[in-house]
Amino acid sequence: MSMGRIICAGLGPGDPDLMSLRAARLVSGAGHVAYFRKAGRQGQARRIVDGMLAPGCVEYPMEYPVTTELPADSQDYIDQLNRFYDDWAARLAALAQTQDVVVLCEGDPFFYGSFMHLHVRLRGRAQVEIVPGITGMSGCWTATGQPITWGNDILTILPGTLPEAELERRMRDSDAFVVMKTGRNLPKIRRALAKAGRLEAAWLVAHGTTAQQRIARLGEMEEADCPYFAIVLVHGGAGRG
Amino acid sequence: MSMGRIICAGLGPGDPDLMSLRAARLVSGAGHVAYFRKAGRQGQARRIVDGMLAPGCVEYPMEYPVTTELPADSQDYIDQLNRFYDDWAARLAALAQTQDVVVLCEGDPFFYGSFMHLHVRLRGRAQVEIVPGITGMSGCWTATGQPITWGNDILTILPGTLPEAELERRMRDSDAFVVMKTGRNLPKIRRALAKAGRLEAAWLVAHGTTAQQRIARLGEMEEADCPYFAIVLVHGGAGRG
Repeated sequence: MSMGRIICAGLGPGDPDLMSLRAARLVSGAGHVAYFRKAGRQGQARRIVDGMLAPGCVEYPMEYPVTTELPADSQDYIDQLNRFYDDWAARLAALAQTQDVVVLCEGDPFFYGSFMHLHVRLRGRAQVEIVPGITGMSGCWTATGQPITWGNDILTILPGTLPEAELERRMRDSDAFVVMKTGRNLPKIRRALAKAGRLEAAWLVAHGTTAQQRIARLGEMEEADCPYFAIVLVHGGAGRG
Repeated sequence: MSMGRIICAGLGPGDPDLMSLRAARLVSGAGHVAYFRKAGRQGQARRIVDGMLAPGCVEYPMEYPVTTELPADSQDYIDQLNRFYDDWAARLAALAQTQDVVVLCEGDPFFYGSFMHLHVRLRGRAQVEIVPGITGMSGCWTATGQPITWGNDILTILPGTLPEAELERRMRDSDAFVVMKTGRNLPKIRRALAKAGRLEAAWLVAHGTTAQQRIARLGEMEEADCPYFAIVLVHGGAGRG
C-alpha cells in the first residue's frame, strides 16, 4: 500500500524518562514527526521530546483550528475539527507513501487520545502502528504515593464533562475513580464529590511527573486556586491503608 | 532512616521494549532485585527482564506460599499471605539499610499490583519509590487495533471476581469496560456479557504484547479454548469507528 508507516508513539505522562524504550528509539531516529498543539503553544507532546529529535528531523505541528473558543457541541466547531482531521490524515497518508512518520502523543494514544481521529481516517490508506504509553492518570496516582486500586476494587474513569447528577451517581458507586477533563468542569466536579460524600478523599494532581507537578487534597483548596488542567482521583482500598 | 531505597519498577505489559527508560536503567544497574512468583515458575516480572540483569546481581524470588490451592477468602489463605508479606517486608527493609533494592513488577505497580502489600508494610521503615509502567490493559487494547475510549466515554475496570449480576449491571452501564482477573471466572464473565448484550463486542486478549499474544472475539470462541490468563475488553466510541 505504501513504503512508509505512520507510527503513533505514546510518550507517557510527561517526564521524558517515563517514555518506553521503543518510543524513545522511534523519536530519536525519526526523520518526520507530527504532533497536535494549540496554536501559539509548544504543545505537551512536543515538550516531552525536547532535545531528543535528530538534526534535520522535519516537524509538522498540527495546530487545532479552534479549542475552547467555540462550544464543543456546536456545528461550527464540529465542522472545523472534521476538516482539520481530514486534512492532516490526507497529508500524513501522502507522506507515508515514501517514508515513516512518527506522530507524537502524550499518554497512551488509545486512551482518550486525539490520534484516534486520524486513526479512523487512515484506515485502508496507510500502514499505522501504535506504541502504547504510560497514561497520564498512572503518573498522577503514582505521584500521590498510594495505590489507586487494591484486590477487588472497581475503578471508574469519568470524563468531567458528564452532568453533575451522573458524576455524583458514579462517584457513589465505585471504589476508586479518576475524573479526566477537569478544566472548567472543576466546580461541578467538586459539587458532585461533596454530594457523593467523596470530597474529603479526593486528590487533585496537575502536571503529574513533571517539574510543575502539583498535588493537593481538593477539599482543602480554594476554588480559585485550582489549576485548570488536572486529574481528580479517589483511591480504592477503603480501610486497607 | 536508611542508606538505600526500595524502588518498585513497573515493567509494563510484557514486551521488554515497552519498559520505561527509567525502569530499564534501574533494572540493568541493580545490584539486588526482588520479584514475586508462583513457586516453581520463572514469573512474569522476571521473564520481562531476562538478559538485562548485571553480572553479579543478587536475585530474591518472593515465592507465594499458596496461590489457587486454597480459597482466597479462607482464613488459612489470608494468614499465610500475611505472614509472607510481613516476612518479605522485613527482609527488604533490612536490605535497604545498606543498599538499593529494585522490586520488579509487571504492569503499573499502583494498579492492582501485588507490591502494595509490601508498600503498606514498609511505611516508616524504608524509603520507597515507585516507577509507573504501561498497564497490561493498555498493551491489550493497543493489540486490538482500536481505541478503548473516545471523547466522553466512561470506562470501567471490573475485577472478574464480582458476582455475575453485578458484572452484568456494570457492563450495561458503561461505554467501555475492561475485566481483569478472568481465569476461572471466565464462564461467569461470558454469561454476564451475554445478559448485558455486550458479548458480540467483547474481545479476549491473552499475553498482550508478548510473543504468545492471542486476540479473539470472545463470542466466537469455544469455552474450553479460552486461555486462563487474559483480559476481556469492550471498546467505547459506539458508532464512531
